Amino acid sequence: MRLTQYFLPTLKENPAEAQIVSHRLMLRAGMIRQSSAGIYSWLPMGFKVLQKIEQIVREEQDAAGCQEVLMPTIQPAELWRESGRYDDYGAEMLRIKDRHGRDMLYGPTNEEQITEIFKASTKSYKQLPKLLYHIQWKFRDEVRPRFGVMRGREFLMKDAYSFDLDYEGAVRAYRKFFVAYLRTFARMGLKAIPMQADSGPIGGDMSHEFQILADTGESRVFCHKDFLKFDPLQSEIDFDADLKPIVDKWTGLYAAADEKHDPAKCPVPADQLLDARGIEVGHIFYFGTKYSAPLGANVDGPDGKSTTVHMGSYGIGVSRLAGAIIEASHDAAGIIWPESVAPFQVGLINLKVGDAKTDALSGDLYAKLKQKKIDVLYDDRDERAGAKFADMDLIGLPWQIVVGPRGAASGTVEVKNRKSGEKAEMPLEQALAKVAPKAV
Amino acid sequence: MRLTQYFLPTLKENPAEAQIVSHRLMLRAGMIRQSSAGIYSWLPMGFKVLQKIEQIVREEQDAAGCQEVLMPTIQPAELWRESGRYDDYGAEMLRIKDRHGRDMLYGPTNEEQITEIFKASTKSYKQLPKLLYHIQWKFRDEVRPRFGVMRGREFLMKDAYSFDLDYEGAVRAYRKFFVAYLRTFARMGLKAIPMQADSGPIGGDMSHEFQILADTGESRVFCHKDFLKFDPLQSEIDFDADLKPIVDKWTGLYAAADEKHDPAKCPVPADQLLDARGIEVGHIFYFGTKYSAPLGANVDGPDGKSTTVHMGSYGIGVSRLAGAIIEASHDAAGIIWPESVAPFQVGLINLKVGDAKTDALSGDLYAKLKQKKIDVLYDDRDERAGAKFADMDLIGLPWQIVVGPRGAASGTVEVKNRKSGEKAEMPLEQALAKVAPKAV
Repeated sequence: MRLTQYFLPTLKENPAEAQIVSHRLMLRAGMIRQSSAGIYSWLPMGFKVLQKIEQIVREEQDAAGCQEVLMPTIQPAELWRESGRYDDYGAEMLRIKDRHGRDMLYGPTNEEQITEIFKASTKSYKQLPKLLYHIQWKFRDEVRPRFGVMRGREFLMKDAYSFDLDYEGAVRAYRKFFVAYLRTFARMGLKAIPMQADSGPIGGDMSHEFQILADTGESRVFCHKDFLKFDPLQSEIDFDADLKPIVDKWTGLYAAADEKHDPAKCPVPADQLLDARGIEVGHIFYFGTKYSAPLGANVDGPDGKSTTVHMGSYGIGVSRLAGAIIEASHDAAGIIWPESVAPFQVGLINLKVGDAKTDALSGDLYAKLKQKKIDVLYDDRDERAGAKFADMDLIGLPWQIVVGPRGAASGTVEVKNRKSGEKAEMPLEQALAKVAPKAV
Repeated sequence: MRLTQYFLPTLKENPAEAQIVSHRLMLRAGMIRQSSAGIYSWLPMGFKVLQKIEQIVREEQDAAGCQEVLMPTIQPAELWRESGRYDDYGAEMLRIKDRHGRDMLYGPTNEEQITEIFKASTKSYKQLPKLLYHIQWKFRDEVRPRFGVMRGREFLMKDAYSFDLDYEGAVRAYRKFFVAYLRTFARMGLKAIPMQADSGPIGGDMSHEFQILADTGESRVFCHKDFLKFDPLQSEIDFDADLKPIVDKWTGLYAAADEKHDPAKCPVPADQLLDARGIEVGHIFYFGTKYSAPLGANVDGPDGKSTTVHMGSYGIGVSRLAGAIIEASHDAAGIIWPESVAPFQVGLINLKVGDAKTDALSGDLYAKLKQKKIDVLYDDRDERAGAKFADMDLIGLPWQIVVGPRGAASGTVEVKNRKSGEKAEMPLEQALAKVAPKAV
């Protein structure tokens, strides 16, 4: 993509309304634009990142054996009256009346709806287990939306639901999502720590939130330093195998959010305890028959008796992740995208537009990168070098290739890694090999 | 995917509420489930089709040089007050008050919003032209929603918008979409006929709707038979070249919807006139400064003077297409998916589950198809043959491979083409080659 043709409205100044770094950088890098409080449009570069995040989430859900559906944003109120949540939900629920005066709502979540879908077609234990998910926009009418896409009103969420005959089945489902979540966040270059969360009225230990580590994170978290050595992508996962050993490994170490951390009772010696900041990006949750009982989601068990199915729900904040990744990966100059979610792999800077040799070499490189299917943003603007460097650092593509008039004479370019800051002069072919994406 | 594990709630009976064939077949094939009037959930197989349609639309928009964004579903009422449409729009607009009493709405379309986004960042004619699109859920509160996803209340639409300095620029943009639309529908196996549509208050001939031919289509259309000979995919398109010759070819032949067709004035001889039925799936429309003027979307022109930009909008009914394709391609037994949008390329039927040899051969084929990245649905249910054949014809995958105990003994299978109905016995390796997808 040529920058002169791209719709990338970067800002030089820090927008006054943005209180946190990801919000500032997303506005400055031209990724999003506010439509109204807590509601954003995703501009081309922001949308590319959102799609990449969504695709990683999708692939890992699919790998875990979860099937994708798409439920609508507007739900009938009756369904929520059946579960008893319509009146309980409070002012965060966006309530709507349609032209016939029927009570509707913009879904803040989908337990009721997926249970209704499941129930309509599943009659026998033989059809179990079933894992279903969708990636859809939700609405929660926050009193005071802020922090950009990190706490928006309209936000994109992946929510999955599991249906099992009994508790043992639900445990198996829970473990699949636990492991899929570790892989999902690791693929985005994030360090995610699962922490036990409130499990609500059901009790038990089957509720975890996933906090990713970020110096500018919203909450303080504590965990064993050994978590930093774990790599969820080290080996292939067979999701049909027993996943208990993996889950045990990750839940065997101490980890707690601030409100649950009691220094007096913490079992980890101070020198092995990480005192860090985190951002919640996922939550998995077993809730038994909380929705299946009132909505009547029963199947015939092996003994012929009708049994209420056991359910769990598993959420990932997809649009929130775009902000969370920036919180975890940026510096004073701007964003530092992990390769897997970068909007482009390479930024190509032509330092002297109008100079025949730099134009020719830049054009040649641009064509060759596209030929190799390496996604490249070509800064072909007639701008001074300083502005080009600043913009490229701001938008944070993993690699920069700089073509200047001196190098162009000898056929060399400068390659810079955005994350490490390392720079080196090299011939064109070597530069092409250097910036090729690594397979994840 | 193994059918015993897939969430595919097919129905044996015709649902009483469905008046048209696509609605009936989508319900019977377990593609969708109604949530409330005119609002549907997309179940796994329906969602796969929807994604494939969406991806073809996306690829052709990208090829035409249009950049993807994503605007939110919930818009502020003020924006629509600026354009004067808030009060004009009528009861079809879903109006909402948020918790602070602010007037919001669920977007039925996005002219105002995209104009606001464009305006905020574009100051000079040098930044033009700009083509922007998004694929997002819309809501139109129809009085009497019916015909399934063909006329839903919540529906997925691709809407694109062009911004140009002058009329000539807008003509160039218009032609790009015209050609992109021809290619888009052709890739879905559809015969789309562009027909001049009402151009509204601006006048001129820059408004076309695209009707696809389908025997069960909603409206009667008339066109020259030579349209059937045109193939939009015959040659590569350079979207930066002059597209006038292509547009002239397609607009040079007579085509008119029923309400515009006057037999007395029709220039086509009766034996060359096609009297058919059609379904509107796209509409492209130049509207000059209708929104840019009231919203103040101006740029500095080459002469330094402020100029109001010329705009057009270009819509495709993405979720509607899922129904329209079925209307255009089905028979008494069920759906006949064109390969490009089929949820799976192959349906593999094991005729005798439990028989060692058929199980082994079916399992072997299933593994080999997956290895070749051919998307396959494996009917491994313990059901009678008749039910399996009926279900496979109903869901309409392009190819069926039938493994029976007799063939299994000799290593042969039966391959059936769903569209032609042709069947042939052949060895496994030959079957694998036969069902491989053709590149489009």
